[in-house]
This record gives sequence, structure tokens and C-alpha cells, in this order.
Amino acid sequence: MKTLHVNLSDRGYPIWVGEGLLADAGALLARRGFSLAPVVIANRTIMRLHGETLMRSLQRAFGRTEIIRIGDGERFKTHATLLQIYREMFRAHADRRSWILAFGGGVVGDIAGFAAATFMRGIPFVMAPTTLLAQVDSSIGGKVGINVAEGKNLIGAFHQPAAVLSDTGVLKTLPKRELASGLYEVIKCGAIRSERLLRYLEKKLPEILSCRAAELQHIILAAARIKADVVASDEREGGLRMILNFGHTAGHAFEAATGYRKFKHGEGVAWGMIAALAYGRELGLMNTRDSARLVRLIRSVGRLPSINAISVDTLWESFIRDKKFQSGDIRMIFLRRPGEAEIHTGVDASSLRRFLKKFLASGGNLI
Amino acid sequence: MKTLHVNLSDRGYPIWVGEGLLADAGALLARRGFSLAPVVIANRTIMRLHGETLMRSLQRAFGRTEIIRIGDGERFKTHATLLQIYREMFRAHADRRSWILAFGGGVVGDIAGFAAATFMRGIPFVMAPTTLLAQVDSSIGGKVGINVAEGKNLIGAFHQPAAVLSDTGVLKTLPKRELASGLYEVIKCGAIRSERLLRYLEKKLPEILSCRAAELQHIILAAARIKADVVASDEREGGLRMILNFGHTAGHAFEAATGYRKFKHGEGVAWGMIAALAYGRELGLMNTRDSARLVRLIRSVGRLPSINAISVDTLWESFIRDKKFQSGDIRMIFLRRPGEAEIHTGVDASSLRRFLKKFLASGGNLI
Repeated sequence: MKTLHVNLSDRGYPIWVGEGLLADAGALLARRGFSLAPVVIANRTIMRLHGETLMRSLQRAFGRTEIIRIGDGERFKTHATLLQIYREMFRAHADRRSWILAFGGGVVGDIAGFAAATFMRGIPFVMAPTTLLAQVDSSIGGKVGINVAEGKNLIGAFHQPAAVLSDTGVLKTLPKRELASGLYEVIKCGAIRSERLLRYLEKKLPEILSCRAAELQHIILAAARIKADVVASDEREGGLRMILNFGHTAGHAFEAATGYRKFKHGEGVAWGMIAALAYGRELGLMNTRDSARLVRLIRSVGRLPSINAISVDTLWESFIRDKKFQSGDIRMIFLRRPGEAEIHTGVDASSLRRFLKKFLASGGNLI
Repeated sequence: MKTLHVNLSDRGYPIWVGEGLLADAGALLARRGFSLAPVVIANRTIMRLHGETLMRSLQRAFGRTEIIRIGDGERFKTHATLLQIYREMFRAHADRRSWILAFGGGVVGDIAGFAAATFMRGIPFVMAPTTLLAQVDSSIGGKVGINVAEGKNLIGAFHQPAAVLSDTGVLKTLPKRELASGLYEVIKCGAIRSERLLRYLEKKLPEILSCRAAELQHIILAAARIKADVVASDEREGGLRMILNFGHTAGHAFEAATGYRKFKHGEGVAWGMIAALAYGRELGLMNTRDSARLVRLIRSVGRLPSINAISVDTLWESFIRDKKFQSGDIRMIFLRRPGEAEIHTGVDASSLRRFLKKFLASGGNLI
């Protein structure tokens, strides 16, 4: 097991990464100072696959442990599920001394974290993320929340976990497409902050895709460290934190334009990065060799669902509805070179739209 | 107008108190740095009485200003109202640069503050409290939230306002019982921290009850300062902040035992203080003269609804369900002398129950 410390003035916390950690969860958390049993919030799928390992470990350390099961998938990240969680917490006699353990992917982490942020004005929570995406991305940074009819993550809070426990072993049961989806976020971390991580990925991709523990641990720690560093220096998302959105403005638009059905989040980001790289090259911000190198790495992870059926009108509409697309002043993240991101303000809307039209017409093959 | 500054490391804010402030709200807030129009969240009653004054002032400073009207009363402090607020905010194209102005009593402040805490992970909000209780109590401290079937304020957050604007003029249209209800909280502030405020209240009660501006301003500032001091030294409610609960453990039980229908919150607190004073005297923590003096002040505010019909079983059940009544370790606030509170842990449950039985049997006239 390796530990990464996230430094936040008064609420720093450890991220533990290692193979087989779930079996030690109880002991680790007891050593961290927890003495009562948590309320576990988990999705049904992960409970079936790895619930027994976790629960046995928790029960050994804390005794009887309550479980709240929620549906598996983004469509359950709603107010209705949140109210279900509150209800079951009250039924389990949870009070302000209680704490939550979120066990699952990004959806579980987001909604369980928001429940923790708001139950009796805030109780602690620990995350045990079970997808690569959640381990490298959504479990770090303290963003929690739910979706509403008007859009994703529009209701939420900032609530930092008390600890994050990432077991690389559970990734073996993750569908390959989910693994790839997480890898795109790892590539993003390298792209914005670490050329070294990019080189590692280029060299070790086969081992990573076959879930070798050492290589998974390496990339999870590297990506988590990058995200944690950026977040620590800009907790409430004023400036630097924006570079984490590389590939995300376009990525969200690809997701939204296809009704969140065609792409996994990471796949949307992959397309968003390819688009940003192509646009950056067109604007003369990055040379062809560097942008081609990054596109090659992204494409080598796996086959991306095609963008052929998306019309520029639909894509553009999703673009301008995105909350990151602040009215008047369009901001985008570009790379200056692999490992170095730049925030550009005042992007010209009509040339961006023209570019997207060309990008779609090429099937995303401008580079 | 007088200003009190609440000191919180990075989120301090001003409390403005004065006669006729609503008419200057726009200018004051523009000077404070706001440049866009707020979303006003208000209850229908206050809008009818004072809405025009406020809206004219806001529109002069910020242009077109949206209003979200909610029902008047505690029974509207629910998830359903919260969802209504979110919906109307999206309809009004609110985004992360928006801010909320809560215009009304404690219910409006709590729910609008919670909407602000959770809308797009948190936007600023300003309170314009329109009841004495809200001006001296609920507008200070950053506690926001809603009620659920299982109890009051069980879902919520800590979210500090950007400013509080208390117009003493609006208190003239406040029902007398509401004014008294707020006064009990003012007495509580004196009781726990300021014998001087108690003397002022004893001397100026007639002027206060007839809503004289100078006297109202004085007691609002004095009570707000006491609450703000206590809160600033203990923002997340670990220790000292508990003394603000003087009269509240029993007070909440009186409210709950009568289904929240018989007593205003402040009236419950008044009975809770009388009970705590009588019990403190019985335990030998305070002498008869001091406790009688405080009970006299409380009773001189007005006639309290009787507690005769409450059974000790019902009261006790509400007592032990209160979230402040931590299992195993019963804590209560007592006065050592007027102006000085003490937290007592390890209160004996069975002797407390015996005392409550006697207190109810006396009709609350033990002192």
C-alpha cells in the first residue's frame, strides 16, 4: 500500500492505494481514528462483486454495519435517491456522530458525499472508489452533488472526504470500457501537468490494460497526486483548478449532444481532448508532432464510439448551455506542450463553431 | 444605521441594523461589491407588507430583479419548497455568479440559505431578516437547512451570509406574539453572557414592546454581538457554541410535545429557560433571588401559552429524541449567575425526568 497526503489547511486526508485494500478497510479506518461503524452507501453491482470482502473487514473492526443500497448508474444520481438515503439513515438511527463510507464509482461517491455534506449539517465520509475514473478523479477534490433535470451536478457542495481507499484489485472486475474511460482522465492529468506520466503511459499501456497491480498503483498515485496538487492550490475553483477541465468543455458537449447515452464520461473527455488538441494546433498554440503524439496515446487505449452522427447545431447548443461556458467570456484549456496547460480566455465563439463543424465532418480525424 | 462586524477567518461579514434600511438595501449592497441583481426569496406575507420598498431599492441599484415567493410558515421549510426554489432559479437563468437575498423570517433565511449553500455547489447570499427572532438569532451563525419528517433542521449546512440587513422598521408590522418570541431569545443572550443587557431589558421593556427604533436597535445589536462572538469562537459547534442552547433542550421538547402547534419557537425557549432556571436552583447551581429575577423578566414580556396539558411521558419522549440530547451523555446549559452560562455534562436522566414531572404539575410555577 502507498499513501498520498492531500494537503488542505485544516482538512487534509490520506489517499491509500494498493491491491487488496478492501480486506483491510476496517483496520485502516480504525487506526485513522474512527470508532463507530459507518453507514455504507453502495451500488448493488459493487455490493454483489466485492461487498462481502468490505463488510467482513468493517464488521471485524466496528461490529454491526448498516448498508444503504442504491441503483447503479448516473440516472440514479437524483434527489429521489438522496431522499432515499436520508430516510434509510434516519431509520438506521444515524446521528451527527455517524459517518458514511461511499463504496462504488463516481455516482456513489458524489451522492453519498452530498448526503454526508448535508445530513445534520455535515458528517464525515470516506470514499472507497471502485472504478479507475473514481480513483483518479471524482474521489479527489471534494466536489459532491447530484443531477437535476436542468443539468448534471447543478446541486451540490464542497465536502472533503476524511480518507480515500483505492483498491486496485477491484479494477479486475471492471468492464474494459470503464477501465478505458478512467485511463482517459489519467492521460489528461499527464497532458496538463506531467510529460513523465505520459511517457509512462506510452510504455506501460499493455500492462495497465491487463490490470497489473504495480502499474495501476503507479498511475493512480501519479494522477491523484496531480489532481490533489491542483485542487490544494485552488480548493474552491477560482483559477488553476480550471486546467483540470482540459477536454471537458467539449467533452461535456459531446456527452450532452448524445443524451448522455452514447459516451462514457471518459470517452467524452477523450473526444474533447482530441478536439482541443486539433483546435490548439489550428490556432498555432501547439505543434503537429506534439498534438499527434497525444492523439496517438488517446487512441491507443481503445476504440472510441464514433462522433459521426452528431450535428454541429446539437453540439453547439450543448456547448453554450454548459455551466463552464461562462456567458460573454469563453474560456478553454489548451496545451502549450505535453505536460503543460494554459487557460485561454476570450475564445472567439464563431471560429470555435466553425472549427467544430470541420472536426465533426472529419469524423474527428483532423489529426 | 449601525454596523456590527462578524469575524470569521476568511468569511467575515457586516450586520447592518437601523430604521428604514430596506429602502437603502440596493445602494448598501452595491457598495458592498454586488453588481448583478440578486434572486430574492421571500414569503408571500412579507412581500405584501414590505416587498415594494425592498424591490424598488434593488431595482434602482441592479435593474430587473427576480422574486421567488414561498409559503409563510415552518411547514414550508421542506424539500418540496427547496425543489421549487431550485426550479425557479434555473427558470430565471441563475448560474454560479448569481446570489440570493433572503427576505423574511427564520424559515426563509434557513431555506434560502440552504438553497444558496447547494445551488451549483454554493453561491453567496444576503439576509434581510424581518422578524426580531431572525434578526437576533437565526440570521447569525451560518446554520441553514430544512425540516424532514424525522425532525427539524436535520438536513442542512453551514453557509455564512455575505451580509445581514436588519431593518427595525419592519418589526412594527410584526404580530405582538412574534415580537415577544424574539425577545425571549434576546433575554437568553443576556442570560448567558451579559448581565448588562438583562438590566437594559428590565429597564426598557415598555419602549421595546412598543417598537421604539432606538431601543430595538440597541437590543438587536447587543444580542447579535453576543451570538456572533460565541459563533466566531466556535464556528462548527464543538464547544462554547453550545451555551446558545440555554433553554433550548427543554424548549424543543415543549415544542415537539405539542406538535409544534402550541408554542412559537421563542415561547418554547422561554419555558425551556424557566425550566432550566428552576432545575438549576433545585440542583443548587443558582440562588433563588437570581433565578426569580430572570423568571420575572421572562414573564414580564407577555403571557406564555400554558403547559398544563402536557404529560411528562410525552415531554420526556420528545426530550430523548432531540439531536442535542446525545445518547449516554446528557448535556444541559445552566446559569451560574445572570450573564454567565455553564455547560454541564453527565446530567442524570432519572432525576431530570422526576424534576420535569414536578415542573409540569406546578404549571411551570416552581419559581
